[in-house]
Amino acid sequence: MAEKVDRILALETTKKVGEKVVLKGWVHTIRDHGSITFLDLRDRSGIVQCLGQDLPKVSSESAVEILGEVKKRPPKLVNGNIKTGEIEVQIAELKLLSKSEELPLDMGSQNLDVTLPILLDFRSLTLKHPKINSIFKVQAEIARSFRDAAEKLGCVEVFTPTIAASATEGGSEVFGIDYYGHNAYLVQSPQLYKQIAVGAFERVYLFSHAYRAEPSVTTRHLSEVVQLDCEIAFIKDFDELLDALEFVGVNALVGAAKACREELKSFGVKEPKVGDSVPRLKLKEAQAIIEKRTGRDLSREPDLNPEDEIEICNWARHEKGSDFVTITHFPTHKRAFYTLPDPKNPEYSLSYDLLFRGLEISSGSQRINELDKLLSAMKDRKLDPKNFGMYLQAFKFGMPPEGGFSFGIERLTMKLLELGNVREASLFPRDMERVDTRLKK
Amino acid sequence: MAEKVDRILALETTKKVGEKVVLKGWVHTIRDHGSITFLDLRDRSGIVQCLGQDLPKVSSESAVEILGEVKKRPPKLVNGNIKTGEIEVQIAELKLLSKSEELPLDMGSQNLDVTLPILLDFRSLTLKHPKINSIFKVQAEIARSFRDAAEKLGCVEVFTPTIAASATEGGSEVFGIDYYGHNAYLVQSPQLYKQIAVGAFERVYLFSHAYRAEPSVTTRHLSEVVQLDCEIAFIKDFDELLDALEFVGVNALVGAAKACREELKSFGVKEPKVGDSVPRLKLKEAQAIIEKRTGRDLSREPDLNPEDEIEICNWARHEKGSDFVTITHFPTHKRAFYTLPDPKNPEYSLSYDLLFRGLEISSGSQRINELDKLLSAMKDRKLDPKNFGMYLQAFKFGMPPEGGFSFGIERLTMKLLELGNVREASLFPRDMERVDTRLKK
Repeated sequence: MAEKVDRILALETTKKVGEKVVLKGWVHTIRDHGSITFLDLRDRSGIVQCLGQDLPKVSSESAVEILGEVKKRPPKLVNGNIKTGEIEVQIAELKLLSKSEELPLDMGSQNLDVTLPILLDFRSLTLKHPKINSIFKVQAEIARSFRDAAEKLGCVEVFTPTIAASATEGGSEVFGIDYYGHNAYLVQSPQLYKQIAVGAFERVYLFSHAYRAEPSVTTRHLSEVVQLDCEIAFIKDFDELLDALEFVGVNALVGAAKACREELKSFGVKEPKVGDSVPRLKLKEAQAIIEKRTGRDLSREPDLNPEDEIEICNWARHEKGSDFVTITHFPTHKRAFYTLPDPKNPEYSLSYDLLFRGLEISSGSQRINELDKLLSAMKDRKLDPKNFGMYLQAFKFGMPPEGGFSFGIERLTMKLLELGNVREASLFPRDMERVDTRLKK
Repeated sequence: MAEKVDRILALETTKKVGEKVVLKGWVHTIRDHGSITFLDLRDRSGIVQCLGQDLPKVSSESAVEILGEVKKRPPKLVNGNIKTGEIEVQIAELKLLSKSEELPLDMGSQNLDVTLPILLDFRSLTLKHPKINSIFKVQAEIARSFRDAAEKLGCVEVFTPTIAASATEGGSEVFGIDYYGHNAYLVQSPQLYKQIAVGAFERVYLFSHAYRAEPSVTTRHLSEVVQLDCEIAFIKDFDELLDALEFVGVNALVGAAKACREELKSFGVKEPKVGDSVPRLKLKEAQAIIEKRTGRDLSREPDLNPEDEIEICNWARHEKGSDFVTITHFPTHKRAFYTLPDPKNPEYSLSYDLLFRGLEISSGSQRINELDKLLSAMKDRKLDPKNFGMYLQAFKFGMPPEGGFSFGIERLTMKLLELGNVREASLFPRDMERVDTRLKK
């Protein structure tokens, strides 16, 4: 039947009242009322109610093709909750494209009420649930908004490798690979490559994968993440980096929120609030504010813990009208070797975190761009320059003042939608307990 | 000095005649003519000639900041070969931002005349050469054009993992990972994940990394590539897939070529030629044409070899005015297990390759979407269904008719610019001999 009429999407039916249409999609729900069957058809655009007499039996989630006529619903049957609520499709022909087995879960309700292990055990199925599905539409919009913002900064997209000859930033939490009989590792971040790249391209952005073999399970860490990075060279000063960080961070989330108003609404979250500007605090200043608000003594703490992040975000929200806050000047010894110490007080570094609604969503710094200082920072951390050959080479040939920052797209998605666990924001999350299916203990 | 005037890019100087400007970039070349020094400054926008008296000594590739005044050149000194050829910058102040060591290569000539091993041994430096650099600007435009085309098809961007619990498509050429004491592997392609994804999203596109532990060195294979994929469901028929393949493939290259006219010119290559439509041939038909043109008997060959690919592309170019040609219906047993056999003749499959100027740039197929047929195809190839749990799950819950295709961005870039080796089209190529630096034998 598809030969005669081109398929249209569910949402397009509203403009086709009185016309014969072909629809394709999945049986979202199906209800028999005597001889009449009501069938909600779901495709990538949304859901449309179809109905027919003496239909063949089809199970929920089966893929079907429907030939039918679009009709206006009687006023009292209009459903204001869905976009196609003013029409329905009278089925003339129903064709089964692919039959679904009986479902182990109730997929027809507005919220998919399952535990996290079940959500992931049945990932191929649960991704079809409209609300779960919409998490990844939001994620795609975050990607788009990030890209748009990075391009507005003049960054060019580059592609960096995930296999490295040494543990890129030091540390032991790396995955080893057997690389043609040699030892190689999955990168912990594209950091070293994006720094080399700005030495050639000035301003770059990248989507890459980053891996951490962290032997622990938390709600906000994954073993493999998709990392969004910017790195910009020939910066005037530290403030230019903070401007860039906030521009990209705010626009990535605000842009996605504007494109996904309905999705945000269905998750019960509001669009990010941005005041006149993102408040900026040195770590010490943030700690003093938190101390004043809570009475906790943080004067010896080298970082903000999760509780502190929530508290300083509450302050930013209430005092500055901003869901974002930037914290700068973390202790030099707590940050990676390439972080530039503050010339005015080298114990602290020109580093920053961007927080959003209580969670760190980005991290970065101005970088050391002089070879001798870099070598000395590596020596302090007992890193062997021999393992950083290609990286160190870049500093021999005119590395300009530069810096950058990175975001994890899963964490951005989790926080924008206020999901309880970062695994919900990854199509196929990797952690120490699971690679699609659960790992045997 | 940067405090007083904002930095502008080299290319923007043409609009600033008579004005004081701040420029930042690298010393591209420097020539002393007695007391006058000519310095070509390079930044991400291009090159501008600067000149000054009694300048401090600076070495090529050093990062510098220049305060100067933009002046019109006398007519006889205008340089038509560069965009800023009508002006020059009289240097008032030259500040060294980062000194370059003496260069091991001549970076000032139009072509970087080095061997491939040298190109890669000094990658952090050679990427700064304008012509090498421009390869990756073209690559970024290919990425953009691919994305635009995929979105026009209605695809949503998704992110899939690179760590899998089993060798994704069978075969032994996989990299193993120690994953928390378990065996895991780097994916050979995102194939299985994108198929699961279309079961939920209908139409998806993705940028992912794909890995092949091929123990051989060729000019067109890498151990790690960036793969661009589309997968679309609820297709009407095989032709709809071919339409989508050709739409995305042609637009990715033509879009990039249009955005990069100058870069193509500097590589001496022409914009891709697209006739009325991309010619489509079954493998058998292509072989018959090649046989007729060359006299070679291909009747027993299950595929086109590189020589055949060149010959059939010559035919398409001369007979059909197209740099592209699509070959379909490869033998079923030569393609991956998920490939749908042609119902009319199951010995051949609903598979395709897209060729461009003598090289296969994309591959794909309509997929088997019925679980029992998929299991039987796996059995034929001695693949154990136990290793494909999450993938097979997707086929239990209404997998629609679907198919897709993929491109390697390095290969697209190589072929569009007619580079001699795919390694030239990868920022940091991985192969069995190199991970940045050469591996010890």
